[in-house]
Order: sequence, then structure tokens, then C-alpha cells
Amino acid sequence: MKVAIIMGSISDMPVMQEAIDILKEFGIETEVDIVSAHRTPEKLFDFSTKAHEIGISVIIAGAGGAAHLPGMVASMSPLPVIGVPVKSSNSIDGWDSVLSILQMPGGVPVATVALNGAKNAGILAAQIIGSADATTLNRIITYKQSLKEAVIKASEGLKNK
Amino acid sequence: MKVAIIMGSISDMPVMQEAIDILKEFGIETEVDIVSAHRTPEKLFDFSTKAHEIGISVIIAGAGGAAHLPGMVASMSPLPVIGVPVKSSNSIDGWDSVLSILQMPGGVPVATVALNGAKNAGILAAQIIGSADATTLNRIITYKQSLKEAVIKASEGLKNK
Amino acid sequence: MKVAIIMGSISDMPVMQEAIDILKEFGIETEVDIVSAHRTPEKLFDFSTKAHEIGISVIIAGAGGAAHLPGMVASMSPLPVIGVPVKSSNSIDGWDSVLSILQMPGGVPVATVALNGAKNAGILAAQIIGSADATTLNRIITYKQSLKEAVIKASEGLKNK
Amino acid sequence: MKVAIIMGSISDMPVMQEAIDILKEFGIETEVDIVSAHRTPEKLFDFSTKAHEIGISVIIAGAGGAAHLPGMVASMSPLPVIGVPVKSSNSIDGWDSVLSILQMPGGVPVATVALNGAKNAGILAAQIIGSADATTLNRIITYKQSLKEAVIKASEGLKNK
Amino acid sequence: MKVAIIMGSISDMPVMQEAIDILKEFGIETEVDIVSAHRTPEKLFDFSTKAHEIGISVIIAGAGGAAHLPGMVASMSPLPVIGVPVKSSNSIDGWDSVLSILQMPGGVPVATVALNGAKNAGILAAQIIGSADATTLNRIITYKQSLKEAVIKASEGLKNK
Amino acid sequence: MKVAIIMGSISDMPVMQEAIDILKEFGIETEVDIVSAHRTPEKLFDFSTKAHEIGISVIIAGAGGAAHLPGMVASMSPLPVIGVPVKSSNSIDGWDSVLSILQMPGGVPVATVALNGAKNAGILAAQIIGSADATTLNRIITYKQSLKEAVIKASEGLKNK
Amino acid sequence: MKVAIIMGSISDMPVMQEAIDILKEFGIETEVDIVSAHRTPEKLFDFSTKAHEIGISVIIAGAGGAAHLPGMVASMSPLPVIGVPVKSSNSIDGWDSVLSILQMPGGVPVATVALNGAKNAGILAAQIIGSADATTLNRIITYKQSLKEAVIKASEGLKNK
Amino acid sequence: MKVAIIMGSISDMPVMQEAIDILKEFGIETEVDIVSAHRTPEKLFDFSTKAHEIGISVIIAGAGGAAHLPGMVASMSPLPVIGVPVKSSNSIDGWDSVLSILQMPGGVPVATVALNGAKNAGILAAQIIGSADATTLNRIITYKQSLKEAVIKASEGLKNK
Repeated sequence: MKVAIIMGSISDMPVMQEAIDILKEFGIETEVDIVSAHRTPEKLFDFSTKAHEIGISVIIAGAGGAAHLPGMVASMSPLPVIGVPVKSSNSIDGWDSVLSILQMPGGVPVATVALNGAKNAGILAAQIIGSADATTLNRIITYKQSLKEAVIKASEGLKNK
Repeated sequence: MKVAIIMGSISDMPVMQEAIDILKEFGIETEVDIVSAHRTPEKLFDFSTKAHEIGISVIIAGAGGAAHLPGMVASMSPLPVIGVPVKSSNSIDGWDSVLSILQMPGGVPVATVALNGAKNAGILAAQIIGSADATTLNRIITYKQSLKEAVIKASEGLKNK
Repeated sequence: MKVAIIMGSISDMPVMQEAIDILKEFGIETEVDIVSAHRTPEKLFDFSTKAHEIGISVIIAGAGGAAHLPGMVASMSPLPVIGVPVKSSNSIDGWDSVLSILQMPGGVPVATVALNGAKNAGILAAQIIGSADATTLNRIITYKQSLKEAVIKASEGLKNK
Repeated sequence: MKVAIIMGSISDMPVMQEAIDILKEFGIETEVDIVSAHRTPEKLFDFSTKAHEIGISVIIAGAGGAAHLPGMVASMSPLPVIGVPVKSSNSIDGWDSVLSILQMPGGVPVATVALNGAKNAGILAAQIIGSADATTLNRIITYKQSLKEAVIKASEGLKNK
Repeated sequence: MKVAIIMGSISDMPVMQEAIDILKEFGIETEVDIVSAHRTPEKLFDFSTKAHEIGISVIIAGAGGAAHLPGMVASMSPLPVIGVPVKSSNSIDGWDSVLSILQMPGGVPVATVALNGAKNAGILAAQIIGSADATTLNRIITYKQSLKEAVIKASEGLKNK
Repeated sequence: MKVAIIMGSISDMPVMQEAIDILKEFGIETEVDIVSAHRTPEKLFDFSTKAHEIGISVIIAGAGGAAHLPGMVASMSPLPVIGVPVKSSNSIDGWDSVLSILQMPGGVPVATVALNGAKNAGILAAQIIGSADATTLNRIITYKQSLKEAVIKASEGLKNK
Repeated sequence: MKVAIIMGSISDMPVMQEAIDILKEFGIETEVDIVSAHRTPEKLFDFSTKAHEIGISVIIAGAGGAAHLPGMVASMSPLPVIGVPVKSSNSIDGWDSVLSILQMPGGVPVATVALNGAKNAGILAAQIIGSADATTLNRIITYKQSLKEAVIKASEGLKNK
Repeated sequence: MKVAIIMGSISDMPVMQEAIDILKEFGIETEVDIVSAHRTPEKLFDFSTKAHEIGISVIIAGAGGAAHLPGMVASMSPLPVIGVPVKSSNSIDGWDSVLSILQMPGGVPVATVALNGAKNAGILAAQIIGSADATTLNRIITYKQSLKEAVIKASEGLKNK
């Protein structure tokens, strides 16, 4: 029950760090690496074909622009792949990475989250693990409870102003 | 290990049927219902808060236009929720349903697939189950092999022309 | 004749404050709260089903990204609901919140105003009250007169330059 | 308590008819006319400045392309104006009418509904009247109940298949 | 042979100033005013119906957001109207003003220039005057020559580096 | 006082015919030709540099896709150039021709009309001629009056139904 | 001097056939195959790493939706890769394939042509070969001449009508 | 075997410099100039018709807004033309230059690269030369190897942290 977090470039790290952090909060082990679909295709090939054999349950892949990493991993791995569209510097407002990850052809899904939504990618990975693991499921229930309490506290803060 | 497939309107059925069909192919039990975020909010509430207690592992939710169903289910269920943007009749080219499902706020992910991508939603649900279940994982490996073979056959057909 | 102003997150307050301010100018009582469709669904449910029974005439709801708050309130309340698309930090240029609020299905309207248009939401709420209340209607007529005078003054300033 | 329904061109009638029909269902009197911002500006001026003096409570205005009718009426009338973006033949996928109606400047709101959403414009007009009229409010509550029942019936039909 | 330059708000002046400046360069008289379609509709009406009777040959109108000024002037004046879409602060990347000005219905054209293209609006006004006035036509020919020389000079600067 | 109507391809004729027809209605002489920026650049060069010397007052240029014809003519002719974006078969919903014509750089304006707006291009050409020619101006005033009457007649037809 | 034409799916053939046809006209040998980035990643790998060793000079790759084929080939082959965005059935108006092919990261270019622009891909491949081969260059010069003549003929047809 | 790099304005130089730099790295001779389609059409004409006769093999053309330079060069030169859409100051998020360059009509291709993708334009030019020149081909193979090594190094840096 380990989650692999890969990204196309070290420059994606500030965005992807949020996935690492939230998974740590959920007590889920992570493995982080840089795998570039366009610059290290052999590594992409190796990683994708073997991930399910080395204890990885879910793969999170982040990339920007013409973002091919999540879809290419999904084409070779039988594991669920979560795609994080990253808004990179020369992106056309993020549309390129969103559409390159979301609009996969029939047969090869990528579970796409919001632009720069690495935190949600981490939570989704935890939910996937939680769908078959009661301990993790309970942690998610607790987490959702904490979201609710933060809103209620903010609401009270507003009223006491 | 059951997958719930819900949709906002009976008119979404032609699209969502593909999720039902592919899950049947994978030998995964499904439960299909119409739950409208905007017209049956109480049913939405009931379904979402209880799904994880009645044997459901993954939820697939399809909706068009200002598609709130997948996100609202995700706000109340700890299970992984897969969202299918449906291109409905008065949609603005599908952009409304894509963005309403994809751009969820931090804390509440929806695993979004392509516009009308119900088949991929079904495969993704199977992959989620497969991430903790070897039998299903093997079926996915076999399925991916069949995709490959179909392409190779088409390629050969081309050469023999 | 009270207007409820709710928002999905405390971070929406700088935008939504303009609705509060203009309603104060019109002498209309407001009630402000944070209600998150995604993090406090029970509170959303309670608020929406009861608002019309506790003296509220109009509801203004602001939210960003996949903005489900206005539409979900509209699904449960018989009152007119005004939606304010908020341009939040990870928004795709505001398109996500605009389309998530505007493109509601048949049966459940949300009166949508411009991106970040909370001031106009406040004026629209006053106009709704004014449609059945002569005092408020007159205040709106006076307000529109003041807009005109500001333009005429600017025009004169230009000519005297 | 009368609702005026105006449109820029007779070609908008097939879309706008849905507003007329639903208001009839709610027992609300309507007045229908063609007022073109671009071809009959004097009529626009007359209509807009006098509507609130001749028993009209709410104005619904539909237009396509560079749709100026709803905004221009709103600039001259103190009444709430509901704008219906109509997808006309040479429209750029409806974006032109949506943005021309929605993005009004501060001071002059238009309550915008979905593309071709005339039915919702009618319901919203009824809700505005209902916000100060208990009979109409109850009709809306009943209407929402009927929406719910239609979904529940469709859901049962699905299960009995 | 006078060009009227009007704008919806004093905040449009920094953009519209370029039209004034270039027309001064061409020796063409200008008349500048603020006319808000939404806040001073009577002034809009007066200006538009009389402009061709008081010595004005061409009208340049700039506005942002749901920009109705150019189209409304065009609906009432027989003169050629040049529309300048202004990228205002709450604009959705300028798309709203571009489409609100460009997509006019059959019968009522607005000569639209690029986003914030007030300089080009001024040149176009000069060209319109030049189409029937040899002195102005020659000034435009000279102006185009100067554009060419600036490029050639930049090209030479590049080579001497 | 002649208007040249040119287009990039014979396939643009069905759209551009409307410009020819309306100019005939206004009693303005036209000259029609096919000039392709991409396939007959020399002809483009010849036409553009000489048009103002052979009695042409205004140029209307229609083109689809990456529509370079109107802008290239404008770069070489001192006359006002009206651009008609044509929605051709492989266009991306018309956005390509709209933006290729509208977004001209400072110094070289194209008076852009709506997508497929050839009729409006013809009217605009007449207005340009009318800005210095009283007979044509009066014809435009009469034309606008006829637009108004058509709407009033449609309005009456509606009331007599 | 052979051009490889590959596509992601046999359903892309009607579009891609135009590349094959025009290359035949130019007397350039072609090799056509189906290589799916998502369904036959090993074949993709093999093809891309070896193409330059088996006599291929230019690669044309067509794909729709989240089109990863052109970019992935470009990541592994040192040859120039021409990408053809194909407007497939569930595409969001073609934007997905255009952006997935065009917006490649620094280091890995794809020479992108227009949506469904397979004919132009073929011509571009010929131009690439012609840049080092005088015979092919001359054929392109002749081809461009024929384009010109077709326009001139259409222009004459127009005048003789 | 020389690459011409031209641009519409000296303001495009910061973007286009990357093409010059990378071609220098590949040991390929360049010739840089400013050629404005809109301000120096004669120079455009001269350059485009003669480039293939003065030792140039590939043309890189960069331009912003309604970017006509690449397409106009392509209409007159038999050489492969690479177009670089430049995100200029008044661009609508870059969409205008992307579509003006990409969506060329059948018969006149432009090899379009990503928004501001001048570096990739340079690499593509080198690949075109390399398709017929073994020395250059080997340099590209070496370059791709260096990209790979940079990623591997970054990956190792990550693991040693």
C-alpha cells in the first residue's frame, strides 16, 4: 500500500509537494521520483510496466503543457493513475495540461484532478486505498470531519466579529 | 466490492450505459440509480452518507451542464468518486460539465474522466478495485492486452490491403 | 425582508463584502454566514430548507472553482438565489465558477451575476425586494440617478481639463 | 404582479416560449413583446423607463449574439431584469450572448440564466414574486416537489426494468 | 470632418487616449466625452441620434465587460461606428468586451478593432475620412511609410550589433 | 465611390454574397474578385497597392481559418479595410478567423465585423461612403427606419395572434 | 527519403489519407502504420527509436483527443516529427488534440499543423525533404504554381459569370 | 545549410533569441532579421521569394497577435517554414497568435511550435537539416541524450535529499 508520486520535471515539485504532505498526514508511504515522458522514455517504460509488481497501489503523475506523463503511465500500468495538470510557465492558462490529461481515449483512463490540485490527488489516492482498507477509510472520515469543523469555526469567528 | 453508478437524469443513461457494460465485462457487481443533486437533494444526502456502509467500494457519478452531482457526493462520502462529464443538449460544448466536475476545491477530490467518458469511468473503477484485489488486477492486465491486440490486428489489416 | 449572504469559504469575503455594503446603503438587513457545499453539507441542507421560514427573502451565494453552493441552495430553497462566481486562486481564469453557477438545469434557476460581481448581487437583491416594496423601489431609482450624476460629473471634469 | 417577456427578434420566440408556458403554469400574468435594442431603440427606451409604472414586477429579456437588450433594459428600469442568452444561428457557440448579458458593470445587474434557459427565467421570475407573495411561494414549493417526484419515478422505472 | 471619441467610463481613458493622440497627429479634430450606455442612457440616445447633424463624421466608442456602448450608438446613428474593446479589471481576459462589440446582429455593424486597440481605431477613423479626402489619404500613405522606415531602421540596428 | 469585395477562396462566396446584395440595395457600385493571400501573393500585392488609385473607396475582405487576407490588404492599402471572418469547414468554431482578423498590431487596423457578417460589412462600407456623401447617408437613415418598421410589424403580428 | 505516416487508430485514416495522397503526388515514398501511444506502447518505443535507422527521413503522426502519439515519437526519435491534430468524435471541438500536440516542452518539438490538416502535413514533409533535395524543391515550386493558377481560374470564372 | 530567423518586431527578440542560441549550440549558421508582414510587405515579398536561392534551408518566423508573418512567408517560399506564436502584450492570452499561425489553409503549411517556443523552433530546424545530414543528426541524438541525463541527475538529487 504505497503511493508513487512522479512528475515530469523538478520544477513541478512545489505543486506536487502537497500530494506528498497530505499522504504523510494519512500515514501512507510514498515514493517520489522524476520521470519525464519526453526526456526519459525508457525510465517511463520501466517504471510503468513494473510499478504494480513492486508494492505500489496507486500512481500520482503531475505534468504541465502538453502533459503526456499521466496518460503514458496509464497506458502501461494496470494500476489506477491520478493525473495532476500543472500550470507551467508557458502554459496557455493551464488549458493545455488539463486537456492533455483529461481527454484520454476509451480504454485508458486517467483520474484527473483540478489544475494544480496535487493535494486532492493525495486525498484521492488515500480514498482509493481506503476503499479496501478500513483503517484508511476511517482516517478519511476523520479528515472530512476536520474540514467541516474548520468551516464551522470560521463561521463562528465571523459572527463574533 | 460493488460499484454504484448514479446519474443526474435518465437522459444521461445512453452515455452511462458504457460504464455498466464494461464493469460487467470485468465481473464487477454494479448498482445503478438516478440521484439528482438539484431535484432530489435528500436522496443525494442519504445515498452519499451511507454508500460506504452498504458494501459499495467506488461511486461513478455522471451529470451534464452545471454538474454538481459528483462533487456533492464526494463532499459526503469517504469513498473514491469518479465523475463523468456528460455533454447534454444545452451544454456550452461540454465545457460547463467538465469544469463543474474537475475544478473541485482542496479537500474534496473527484476523479474526473473525459467528456462522455463513461467507459473509462468503469475501467477506472475496476482499476481501483484491482489495486487491492489480484483477480481484478489480472483482468485489467488481460484487458490491456486485448486493446493491444486489436491495434496490432488493425495494423496488419492495413498492410494486407 | 432580509437578505442572506453566504459564501463557500472565508477567503471569498473580500469579494462578497461589496454585497453587504451596498445592501446596507439600501437600508436592507443582511445575515452573513459561511456555508460550504463541500465541507458542511448538513449545514447547507439546514440553511437551504429553512431560509424561507425565518424571514429571509433573497439568498446571495458566492463561490469559486467548481462552485456548487448557489446551485445546491437553489435546489432546496423556494426563494430566489443570486449566484456570485468568485475568481479564486486556482481557478481557470474564472470560467469554472461562471459555468458551474450559470448553466443550471431546467427547473432550478440561479440568478447569476458577473465574475466577482458581488456589488451587483446586492443591487439585484434590492431590486427583487423593490419589485414588491415601493420604498425600496424608490431607493433604487435614486441610486440609478446617482450613477448618472457621477458620469455627468466625470464628463464635465473632462471638458474643463 | 405581471411579468414582461421581451425578446430582440421574433426568431427568439421558440426559445422564449418556455418562459411564457411555465409562468402560465404558476398562474402569473405575462405580457410578451418584441423590443430590439438595435433596431427599435426608442421603443426600448419607452418600455424600460415605464415598465415599473404600468404594473410590471419583473422583466425577462432574451437575446442572441452581442445581446444588448437585457443590459439596456436594466440600465433604465429599477425592476429586476432576468437575461436569457439565446444561441442564435451565427453565434460563436453561444459564448457571445452569455458574456454580453452576464458581464454587466457595477451598478447595473442582470440576473443571467443558462444558455437558452428561458424556462428557468420563468421560474426565477415566479420566485421573485414568491419572495413577497405566499401563494406564489407555495406554488414554487409544490413545483419543486413535482420535480423530485419525477426523478423518483424515473428511478423506480429503472429498477423495475 | 470631426471624430467623436466616447467611452463608457473615465477609467477607459488611459486606453482611449491613444485614439486622441493619433488623430491629432493626422490633423483631425476630435471631440471627447464620457457616455455610459448603462448609466446615462438618455445622453447615449441624444448623442447617437444627433451626432451626424453636428459635424461628426466617424464615432469611436470604447467600453469594457458587457460592452454595449458601441453597439447602442450604432443602432441609433447612421455614421460609421468604430468599437474598441477595453480590457477592464473584472473582465474575463477581455473575451466579454470583444464578443459584446464584435458579434452585432445583421443590420447594425460595429467596426471592431483589437482588444485595447484605440490607436488603430484612430487610424481607421482617419482612413474613413481619407477615403473621400485626398489630403488625409496622403497623410495615411506618409504614416504607413514611416512605419516601414521604423522597421527598416530596427533591422539595420540589429545587423550593426 | 466603389467598394471592392474580395475573398480568399470561391468557397467563401455564399457568405460574401450578402455584402454584394446589400451594397446593390444602397446603389453602390461593387467590384468582386478572388485574391488569395496564401496562393496568389503577387495579385494581393498588386491589388492592395493600387486599389486607391483606381476609384475604390472601401475594401471588404473575407477569409476563413488563419485568415491573413484582410490584414495583408490593410498593410499595403491606405483605404479602410473591412474584414469578414468566415466560418470555414475545418475552422475551430470560427475562433481562428475571428482572431486572425481582429487582433491586428498597432498601425494597421482592420474594421472587423461578426463571424459570417458579410451583410454588416456591406452596410459598414455604405456608412463609410455616407460619412462624406449625403445621398448615401440618407439611404442609411431610410434603411435603419425599415429595420425598425420590420420589428414593429413583427411585434404587432405577435399581439394579434 | 521515405516518410512514415502513423496514426493512433484506424478511425483516423479518413483524415490521414490526405497526407498519403499528396506525398504520392510529390513522388515521395510512404510507409503507413497504426501505432497507438496508449494501446501499443512497446510498438511506439520500437518504431520511434529505430525509424531513423531504416531509411525514414520524416515522421507524420496523427491522433485525436489527448493526443500523445506525436509528442511521444518526438521524444524518442531524432527525426523531424509532424503532428496532425485529428478532430475525433468525443473531442472538445478539437481543442484537446490541438493543445496536446502543440504545447510540447522545451527540447522536444512537434511540427504541428492545423486541425485535420493531414494534407498540409504531407506538403510540409515534402518541403523538409526538398530543403536538401533539388528535385523535390522544384516539385514544390510547381505545386505552388498550380495553387496560384487554380485561384486565377476561379477569379476568371467569376468575372465571366 | 543556413537557418533564417525572422520576426515581426524587435520586441519579439527576447523570445526569438532562444532559437538563435540553440542553433549556435548545434553549429548551424543563422541569419537574423526583422521582417514585418504588416509594415514592410515589400521586404516580406523579397525575402520570401528569394530565401531558397541564397543558401537558406529552413525559415523560422516569430510573430504575435494576428500573426501573419509565418503564413505569408510560407505562401511565397518553397522552404519549410517554422512558426513561433509570440505572446505579445495585447494578445488575448496568446490564442490569437497560436490560431493565426496554426490554422493555415490546405496547400500552405506552417510547422507551428508551442507559444513562445522559439527554442523548440531551433531544435526543429536542426532536425530538418539532420534529416539529410548525418553530422547534424548525430548532434541531435547527443542533445537528446543530454536532456535525459539532466532528468536522471535531478532524480538522483531528489533521492539524496
